Amino acid sequence: MSSPYANLLPTSGAWKQQITDYLQEDVPSFDFGAFVVGNKPETASLYMKQSGLISGVPFAAEVFKQCELSVEWKYHEQQYVSEEELLKHGGKVVVAKVSGPANKILLAERTALNLLARSSGIATQSYRTKQLADKAGYTGLIAGTRKTTPGLRLLEKYSMLVGGVDTHRYDLSSMVMLKDNHITSTGSITKAVKSARSVCGFAVKVEVEVSTEQDAKEAIDAGADVIMLDNFSGAELQVVAQSLKSFYKDKKHSFLLECSGGLTLQNLSTYLCNDIDIYSTSSIHQGTGIIDFSLKIDS
Amino acid sequence: MSSPYANLLPTSGAWKQQITDYLQEDVPSFDFGAFVVGNKPETASLYMKQSGLISGVPFAAEVFKQCELSVEWKYHEQQYVSEEELLKHGGKVVVAKVSGPANKILLAERTALNLLARSSGIATQSYRTKQLADKAGYTGLIAGTRKTTPGLRLLEKYSMLVGGVDTHRYDLSSMVMLKDNHITSTGSITKAVKSARSVCGFAVKVEVEVSTEQDAKEAIDAGADVIMLDNFSGAELQVVAQSLKSFYKDKKHSFLLECSGGLTLQNLSTYLCNDIDIYSTSSIHQGTGIIDFSLKIDS
Amino acid sequence: MSSPYANLLPTSGAWKQQITDYLQEDVPSFDFGAFVVGNKPETASLYMKQSGLISGVPFAAEVFKQCELSVEWKYHEQQYVSEEELLKHGGKVVVAKVSGPANKILLAERTALNLLARSSGIATQSYRTKQLADKAGYTGLIAGTRKTTPGLRLLEKYSMLVGGVDTHRYDLSSMVMLKDNHITSTGSITKAVKSARSVCGFAVKVEVEVSTEQDAKEAIDAGADVIMLDNFSGAELQVVAQSLKSFYKDKKHSFLLECSGGLTLQNLSTYLCNDIDIYSTSSIHQGTGIIDFSLKIDS
Amino acid sequence: MSSPYANLLPTSGAWKQQITDYLQEDVPSFDFGAFVVGNKPETASLYMKQSGLISGVPFAAEVFKQCELSVEWKYHEQQYVSEEELLKHGGKVVVAKVSGPANKILLAERTALNLLARSSGIATQSYRTKQLADKAGYTGLIAGTRKTTPGLRLLEKYSMLVGGVDTHRYDLSSMVMLKDNHITSTGSITKAVKSARSVCGFAVKVEVEVSTEQDAKEAIDAGADVIMLDNFSGAELQVVAQSLKSFYKDKKHSFLLECSGGLTLQNLSTYLCNDIDIYSTSSIHQGTGIIDFSLKIDS
Amino acid sequence: MSSPYANLLPTSGAWKQQITDYLQEDVPSFDFGAFVVGNKPETASLYMKQSGLISGVPFAAEVFKQCELSVEWKYHEQQYVSEEELLKHGGKVVVAKVSGPANKILLAERTALNLLARSSGIATQSYRTKQLADKAGYTGLIAGTRKTTPGLRLLEKYSMLVGGVDTHRYDLSSMVMLKDNHITSTGSITKAVKSARSVCGFAVKVEVEVSTEQDAKEAIDAGADVIMLDNFSGAELQVVAQSLKSFYKDKKHSFLLECSGGLTLQNLSTYLCNDIDIYSTSSIHQGTGIIDFSLKIDS
Amino acid sequence: MSSPYANLLPTSGAWKQQITDYLQEDVPSFDFGAFVVGNKPETASLYMKQSGLISGVPFAAEVFKQCELSVEWKYHEQQYVSEEELLKHGGKVVVAKVSGPANKILLAERTALNLLARSSGIATQSYRTKQLADKAGYTGLIAGTRKTTPGLRLLEKYSMLVGGVDTHRYDLSSMVMLKDNHITSTGSITKAVKSARSVCGFAVKVEVEVSTEQDAKEAIDAGADVIMLDNFSGAELQVVAQSLKSFYKDKKHSFLLECSGGLTLQNLSTYLCNDIDIYSTSSIHQGTGIIDFSLKIDS
Repeated sequence: MSSPYANLLPTSGAWKQQITDYLQEDVPSFDFGAFVVGNKPETASLYMKQSGLISGVPFAAEVFKQCELSVEWKYHEQQYVSEEELLKHGGKVVVAKVSGPANKILLAERTALNLLARSSGIATQSYRTKQLADKAGYTGLIAGTRKTTPGLRLLEKYSMLVGGVDTHRYDLSSMVMLKDNHITSTGSITKAVKSARSVCGFAVKVEVEVSTEQDAKEAIDAGADVIMLDNFSGAELQVVAQSLKSFYKDKKHSFLLECSGGLTLQNLSTYLCNDIDIYSTSSIHQGTGIIDFSLKIDS
Repeated sequence: MSSPYANLLPTSGAWKQQITDYLQEDVPSFDFGAFVVGNKPETASLYMKQSGLISGVPFAAEVFKQCELSVEWKYHEQQYVSEEELLKHGGKVVVAKVSGPANKILLAERTALNLLARSSGIATQSYRTKQLADKAGYTGLIAGTRKTTPGLRLLEKYSMLVGGVDTHRYDLSSMVMLKDNHITSTGSITKAVKSARSVCGFAVKVEVEVSTEQDAKEAIDAGADVIMLDNFSGAELQVVAQSLKSFYKDKKHSFLLECSGGLTLQNLSTYLCNDIDIYSTSSIHQGTGIIDFSLKIDS
Repeated sequence: MSSPYANLLPTSGAWKQQITDYLQEDVPSFDFGAFVVGNKPETASLYMKQSGLISGVPFAAEVFKQCELSVEWKYHEQQYVSEEELLKHGGKVVVAKVSGPANKILLAERTALNLLARSSGIATQSYRTKQLADKAGYTGLIAGTRKTTPGLRLLEKYSMLVGGVDTHRYDLSSMVMLKDNHITSTGSITKAVKSARSVCGFAVKVEVEVSTEQDAKEAIDAGADVIMLDNFSGAELQVVAQSLKSFYKDKKHSFLLECSGGLTLQNLSTYLCNDIDIYSTSSIHQGTGIIDFSLKIDS
Repeated sequence: MSSPYANLLPTSGAWKQQITDYLQEDVPSFDFGAFVVGNKPETASLYMKQSGLISGVPFAAEVFKQCELSVEWKYHEQQYVSEEELLKHGGKVVVAKVSGPANKILLAERTALNLLARSSGIATQSYRTKQLADKAGYTGLIAGTRKTTPGLRLLEKYSMLVGGVDTHRYDLSSMVMLKDNHITSTGSITKAVKSARSVCGFAVKVEVEVSTEQDAKEAIDAGADVIMLDNFSGAELQVVAQSLKSFYKDKKHSFLLECSGGLTLQNLSTYLCNDIDIYSTSSIHQGTGIIDFSLKIDS
Repeated sequence: MSSPYANLLPTSGAWKQQITDYLQEDVPSFDFGAFVVGNKPETASLYMKQSGLISGVPFAAEVFKQCELSVEWKYHEQQYVSEEELLKHGGKVVVAKVSGPANKILLAERTALNLLARSSGIATQSYRTKQLADKAGYTGLIAGTRKTTPGLRLLEKYSMLVGGVDTHRYDLSSMVMLKDNHITSTGSITKAVKSARSVCGFAVKVEVEVSTEQDAKEAIDAGADVIMLDNFSGAELQVVAQSLKSFYKDKKHSFLLECSGGLTLQNLSTYLCNDIDIYSTSSIHQGTGIIDFSLKIDS
Repeated sequence: MSSPYANLLPTSGAWKQQITDYLQEDVPSFDFGAFVVGNKPETASLYMKQSGLISGVPFAAEVFKQCELSVEWKYHEQQYVSEEELLKHGGKVVVAKVSGPANKILLAERTALNLLARSSGIATQSYRTKQLADKAGYTGLIAGTRKTTPGLRLLEKYSMLVGGVDTHRYDLSSMVMLKDNHITSTGSITKAVKSARSVCGFAVKVEVEVSTEQDAKEAIDAGADVIMLDNFSGAELQVVAQSLKSFYKDKKHSFLLECSGGLTLQNLSTYLCNDIDIYSTSSIHQGTGIIDFSLKIDS
């Protein structure tokens, strides 16, 4: 069963055409196995075989729908399946029952599994990272990045949400990020922020990447919405963050502080402090492991 | 510089449209940062920041081409960059120089890096797995699977080739794979093979998944081209493989033996024996790590 | 010549495919006139025939490029052509010279003109509205809306920028707008803002539409970035805006006030006050007149 | 309820894909508001808020269908809603009731309204122009032009039909139009008509634009189906038209006379005469106002 | 070398995307042969191996262009290669020289040949049919039909033009054809013509299919542009055609008479008479033979 | 009714989009006839008017489905309709009954017929060729080629299967075919086979075209799966084939022999011998005649 996050995906969206393309990628011409197996009605079990957070349900559901199969979900998206739960069921739990002609079940199989495996892998890694931060007493946000698999950003950002982390800016048309080159091109942080605002307007946020407290202040004063503190050691980072928050305490400026770069599940705790509003990391979605699912026709 | 494998990619292919789509995914409407940075000519360095095998060059090259940038490659695809090499250059080597308007460099940046990172990650893992098997004296093939990222099969199968492993069947329209359901539907292994051959014709191979030596023999006699030995322990596997090869030694049958299921870089060596022609594993491309690349405009 | 805004349009973007589609719309099968006129090289003059702001240059330029024509622009985008200027040149000025085979000039003609006419019409109306507000001493933003022509949002939002007004939120994936239904569904303004923030994250702004000062305060306290004051008369509006700005003067809240609904070039001045940060109106782009252009082959 | 004109739109047509694209344009990635509002079943009223002719119903209906909503139409396409009717209902009439999940109603809202507003604006302007000509005793045709919004020609030509005017030629593959350049290229009107006929064949009409009575006669004699009288003052136009009709009265030639260029609702009556078969004008569809519609969930 | 007909094909047209799709159809994933042959520069000869009319040159040229090959044409489109010419060159003439990397020549080969073979087959059959009619003293038109290969109508109608025959109506949006069902639905021929005219307007022709002279007259009087005489024997046909032409000789009606149904190169001459303006037949393009071409790399 | 071959076509496949495109090709803008005929429910008869094998049913069925029509098939795919059967029913048999709105029946008509006519033409020619070979005592395979109509390969290969012949390799990504150029480029047959195998892997077959027995042996020894004997006369062919089969009789090599080039229904029997495993010919699908079908609304 899809989570409420499924409402984020439009009924009539390009992601449904992408799923058609994925199926086409798997059968450019004839589906020989489909001929052999025929179209006798069957029911198949969708198994989850590793511990983790279930994610990607609306994507898999769309694969089944396009293959004209019906599905009954036994587990719901965002449910965490523990090692204990798995062991209790012999190492795999039945996440859903899929029914329809044998050939269509086999057609849907690989694409549905490939999507679920990747989505659940990202959601699980996101969830574990968020858990770690929570336990360390961190009250801000853990966020992903734009380092997503080309073509799959919607699925991957969706998986981050299921896993409980912030998606960060979606693309280059969303929040503007100003770095070295933007500042050099325009002459100053202030000019870069002003230039960005002249086109992105009031509706879009502007973030500035800085490497000194002085630059952070210029960015805040120029109206940046988010400040990314770059190139600071864990200790420096905390000092600068506190100093900035303190300096602007009674001033009419609203800004968020972000820390990014090289964060992993392993080293995150050494960076955490509540003066930083956001820790962003690609480690929760890029090159992360998958969660193993399989689909077997019930005999 | 692209490897000879680049010739496998057609000049006028859908993969080029996909790259257009990836860039579109990153800029659905306006590119605000491009306005700020302007179109002054710049040169950027493409850095590789982790040890591994370079792969995905023609894909990145197409991103740069579509963004109207010129590239000069300093390293070539399929080159292995060692830890020593990295250390010698301060932890990152300049793989290529990219030139053109600043805004176009920043537009191309994320998509090109995302493709290179994933492709090189898979090539590197493939290469390491192949190296391990070679060192163990294995003379057959290591192969990937069809568990690829939806939409990215071409890139991922390509990366396997760069890494020195076999791509296995590309899709459901390539080699036919007959499993339990196909055999049950048709009544016997023999009938399933015959049914498949009646549509796939002489030009396409047929593989049968079996769990007993007896079934393997029926499949071979029925004309299957490849036999997948399923559900055997490492020890059993070697016994059955040897027995089959020996039994058909003087007979007019041509077949290959494949072993699959749960193989990883860690456990592979316990399964290897030269009576098995192919060991296939998704561990070389699914949920593998990436190789870190970055792109910085030269100041 | 394109304005700096042209940098906002990605080199490899879907808008270029749309232009291919527009040309296809005009020639679904054969171009009979092209056969008659032949492919002799010609030069044509692109005339502007009405006073206004030139806009849409990169879109027209792409039409000419796809038709393999070369263009030399005599005027630049965002230039205002006055009545006097027109009269001086007999009612029409030569905006550009277009060269290439006669049949290709005639193919490009209608699509290029249709795009320029609409873009310049919107830019001109935007410009005039902004001028009026400036003259009235208003220091905030005039903005457009999402009531754009389906399929042409990029061109129309672009034209607003050329005309000097804010584009407002681009689409439903940009700034979140919470209205009656969102608030009713979640139970309160506070809950609606919190629900939105849980998915849009820190990178996206949240706007709330309110009809009482009390509700405006709840929205601000809940963290809304923009407050739209709805259903207020011009007089009430100014009172409420001032009251809110005053109430939060010394508080750590950052918010913008927006006024929308029924504003036109005619009635705008009766609503203007500097406590309102944004006045948004579809009158600058929906159902506005066009600026007349024509293209004639030089004899 | 759709008018009989809806039958003109093919069941399986590209215009349905365009509507999918319009929805995608409005939600490139996530629909945040949809998450907040949820998918509780609701009913919404589609209001018409300005006097005019209702048009665009099958296009709006397709938007609702793609968003999986059901619609009950209370008014039908091509119905004229008068000021009196509007006043009787407090300034807005309920054109339709739209039912379905709240999030899908809000998703469909803007695209459906944008299409209805533009289509009804064009139909209304067309209708008023036709009425004016009818009242002046004109018995021929009022027609639109090819100056339509790129990508929206089907909707706009459809709206002309709903408004009671002729759509004129649809595109460059329909009726051939020969102007100065075609005639110069081929050497004479006669040669240009012959050249056109050699490729457009017997099934497609040929129109020639002329500026003297002599040229009109050459075109008619060469077999042109329609003669456009260009560059004539209102008085001259009527003289020439009468002279041509009279000259060919007893001859075996069939032709239509068209007048075009700068016609508007304001100046049309000074041009009308029944010897002209068609008056064509872009003023009925280009830069015309829209008719205001809104969609509100019933509380 | 392309014929003047090539000007009928728009520079920026969907037919170019179709050619990309054809190449994609031939290489859904990897081009293995391209890897083997490599990208050494080569020149290949494009041979015509059967007597006939060369057609399809711009389509083949676009294949070569998309494969980044250069071509030098030795023969031109619409040139008739006779048996004698073939014999003189040992059974095949070199129509063009194609140069570029070996792998790209082999990629282009099959698609280019498949297009040329079909186009030239149709042009040749069209040409021969037209020749036969000309020799029989027939002065009217031979035309094709709408029975074209789905997806290839542009190529096939183009080939008819090259072969010297009329393309007849292109599609359902071109000339309206009214048959039994249209007449029954509306109640009479007169009503059907009037109904069609109310939507197709003055710019599109209306044809009516009739089976009696009486019906032909009703159609002509109702304003039909073309009358198709259906179900008449060869003898009757000529009597009715003459009678109609004679009856309307001095009347102010303009109409064309068409004969269709079952015509072939074999039986055509028994139907020909100059009172019929058009003989249309699918035998010139449906199920006709191809002209054999081949492409060989010069050794 | 579709044959079991229909299972080869994926539920969610690009071929369905192609059918949408075919309908679009026939109605680029308005369907005028549809307006005239209206949407009254009707039933139409789908007639087969020539003797042959019925093929293409799932393609026609998809046309009807996309036009929202229901169909009841009276004959099934792969059924052979004889001359006697036709005569018994007055020259045409009712293959199916199609029901739905009149306008949609007329919309579907031409595209459905065009597909059935071509598919059945190919299936019939394939069937007759196979029959001829069977009667001559040939026990091997008759196969088609890659000389299919661009864009229609799926339909044409499908029709071959319905007609009982082998489809041969589907595209350049399927079985690798090595010819002169590949061998010259790599230096020897052995090197070419090895080069191909290094990228196509174990899952794809390799065929080599040879013109001497010596080369055939080199190819077989190098591991080629199929040997095409080229440039042999009928007599030589049989000698070489027998010699090769005899030479490898007791050796551990598995290979197939193919004969191709210039084979037709007329000359095939002079080439047949059972030492050749496959005779491939484009004569069964390229430039073959069609089978005539029509669709008439029942009065």
